[in-house]
Amino acid sequence: MTLRRLTSEALGTALLVTAVVGSGIMADRLTDDVALALLANTVATGAALIMLITTFAPVSGAHFNPVVTLVFTLQRAISARLAVGYVVAQCLGGIVGTLAAHVMFELPLLQISETARSGAGQWVAETIASFGLILCIFGAINARANIATTVAAYITAAYWFTASTSFANPAVALARSLTNTFAGIRPADLPGYWAAEVAGALVAAAFSAWLFKPTAR
Amino acid sequence: MTLRRLTSEALGTALLVTAVVGSGIMADRLTDDVALALLANTVATGAALIMLITTFAPVSGAHFNPVVTLVFTLQRAISARLAVGYVVAQCLGGIVGTLAAHVMFELPLLQISETARSGAGQWVAETIASFGLILCIFGAINARANIATTVAAYITAAYWFTASTSFANPAVALARSLTNTFAGIRPADLPGYWAAEVAGALVAAAFSAWLFKPTAR
Amino acid sequence: MTLRRLTSEALGTALLVTAVVGSGIMADRLTDDVALALLANTVATGAALIMLITTFAPVSGAHFNPVVTLVFTLQRAISARLAVGYVVAQCLGGIVGTLAAHVMFELPLLQISETARSGAGQWVAETIASFGLILCIFGAINARANIATTVAAYITAAYWFTASTSFANPAVALARSLTNTFAGIRPADLPGYWAAEVAGALVAAAFSAWLFKPTAR
Amino acid sequence: MTLRRLTSEALGTALLVTAVVGSGIMADRLTDDVALALLANTVATGAALIMLITTFAPVSGAHFNPVVTLVFTLQRAISARLAVGYVVAQCLGGIVGTLAAHVMFELPLLQISETARSGAGQWVAETIASFGLILCIFGAINARANIATTVAAYITAAYWFTASTSFANPAVALARSLTNTFAGIRPADLPGYWAAEVAGALVAAAFSAWLFKPTAR
Repeated sequence: MTLRRLTSEALGTALLVTAVVGSGIMADRLTDDVALALLANTVATGAALIMLITTFAPVSGAHFNPVVTLVFTLQRAISARLAVGYVVAQCLGGIVGTLAAHVMFELPLLQISETARSGAGQWVAETIASFGLILCIFGAINARANIATTVAAYITAAYWFTASTSFANPAVALARSLTNTFAGIRPADLPGYWAAEVAGALVAAAFSAWLFKPTAR
Repeated sequence: MTLRRLTSEALGTALLVTAVVGSGIMADRLTDDVALALLANTVATGAALIMLITTFAPVSGAHFNPVVTLVFTLQRAISARLAVGYVVAQCLGGIVGTLAAHVMFELPLLQISETARSGAGQWVAETIASFGLILCIFGAINARANIATTVAAYITAAYWFTASTSFANPAVALARSLTNTFAGIRPADLPGYWAAEVAGALVAAAFSAWLFKPTAR
Repeated sequence: MTLRRLTSEALGTALLVTAVVGSGIMADRLTDDVALALLANTVATGAALIMLITTFAPVSGAHFNPVVTLVFTLQRAISARLAVGYVVAQCLGGIVGTLAAHVMFELPLLQISETARSGAGQWVAETIASFGLILCIFGAINARANIATTVAAYITAAYWFTASTSFANPAVALARSLTNTFAGIRPADLPGYWAAEVAGALVAAAFSAWLFKPTAR
Repeated sequence: MTLRRLTSEALGTALLVTAVVGSGIMADRLTDDVALALLANTVATGAALIMLITTFAPVSGAHFNPVVTLVFTLQRAISARLAVGYVVAQCLGGIVGTLAAHVMFELPLLQISETARSGAGQWVAETIASFGLILCIFGAINARANIATTVAAYITAAYWFTASTSFANPAVALARSLTNTFAGIRPADLPGYWAAEVAGALVAAAFSAWLFKPTAR
């Protein structure tokens, strides 16, 4: 069962990164209008999330994201040992996802992004992006709503309303540092994003525990 | 329980305004085509509403809007006292939402919009926008349908078919008067919008009570 | 009950036409790219259909369309007398919808469209458009699926894949002949559209009765 | 019952191809921006899939695709004899769909595409596209989720993230070789696409059987 779970996290994160990076390359090739490219990137990412969370949630929970795994580990929903496996699977899967996009679009396999994404505005944006992601996951669970649809809707919005275009995912950010295309991020800027993502997730987890705690009705 | 409800209204409205204002700034920066900017703004707002209503409805009802609170108060669904708290929370939350967008996009925190939105066409548009919003909320309740999806679909359409791009929300309008970006509205134009929004909501509430009243079957 | 049903058909069709005509005016004002204008028009129309069918279906069935009323009358789902009332309500409501769009966008109230929509390609397109609409209504009923979502998805697609941009509705076509804006149609071209729409609907009704008939399992 | 099933496969595939080819022609006529044309093509295809799968699934399973029929035949979900009928119906239906688009847009009925779609990147892309399609079908079945929505979301994403714009369907590819418009593919390039699509589907079927197999809980 563990192998299937880890495979689910690895393949799901791989396909998510392929969707993000690949649609960025496709859009960037087809238009000079950056807003139109981001809109195509947004539609592809949101739609991919619906498919991926629907498909993989029954197997592994469809985290695809170390900060999601972190908050569920803190809630003792999964063991620390399995959590480590999840994070490794997500990081490796994400990297394979970038490589797959490069193969399909016939680009050099190994690349390093030169896109600067840094500064206070970006870090606040990533903190808010990650906060909102964890909040809506616990919100959808609390509301017994469709998690795939809720998360996809959130990321669709957050691509536009956060100044960072909402990475909100350390494993995906790592994978995106390995492509010098539309969706890339300079490796030197990863630590700032990671710190912001973890901070936003931890605050959201604590806040959600209070906001959604069952009342004595 | 009251604190959680007020927090839910404040945070939900804050995130809604951040989504509206932030996506407007992002879109405006990336393209010169105003229709494309409005389309991105529309997609982000509609998607944010799905996430926000899903997440916060079980806690506070996810009003995020003084005219929604008004019609539920008139129906005695919530007390007048709580309603006052809701409206204060929505207005304060909305302002924080504007500030958050400015921080993320590294703009001056305090701004006053200079975008004129006035005249008979705009006021009729806001009356229709607000009428449609309250109608579809009662319609979705009557149909036992998904309120988040129905409201998000309505606002997505109304951004385009009303000449005012459908504010339909006095607290969000107030917050949008404090940003001189894509989504702004001149403070002097607020009273006209507010009056139209209240009028449309009251007519919709009375009309819905008649249209959806249970028949003696 | 009859008054509420007729009001539901009239108001629903009015709001549908306002959505179609209003979003066309808005899009046309904001961009020179006709594809982008049609995309905005599509998104607004599809989203409006989700809201309108959800809201009005429990009251009147949410036909908003004489050919829908026609096929349900032939199936004896509603009486011929009520059907006449429905069609009158749809036509009057549709015209009010066009007027409302003109008021909001501060255009002359009374207009006649000069947009030619004629020829064999257009008529085949309208026949297919109407066939598909009736097919998916019966299909969604047969599948016990969400009719609002299914119809909205169909019209979203049909705006693009039919050469006529899929009017598929004689009452809406009539109302659109009274606006000389993006969504207009020359009055002289109405009879061709109407004939094609009725033909497509009748074929679809007969075909659906065969395809979806319960088997003796 | 068999006649209705075959009719369902033929008509469903015809309408799917009409949606793909027709929306491509419409978009290409209205804009010079290829990304915008592909976005319109994507929205139309995704929306059409929701309507078509919802409508035809209760009759025939809504395969519309020889590789879907292939994997269900290997799983003994349908007989080999019926499968042959399905594939013939899909191919004939698809061709009729191309002709219908040509009639509506008043183009020469018989055309041969001159659009080259070939090379290692394209073949890897088609393999991944087909793999993802079969994976999400089995995933949605395993999750008891809405298959129409899941498949539509997947294809929406895959139009952008695969370098081939995700044909993922040998019958639709065949039909698209007969139109020299936006959605076309040169007949000489069909065998490469077909081989990739079959390979991706077979790997996905084997992989899904392992990933989603019931555990002894």
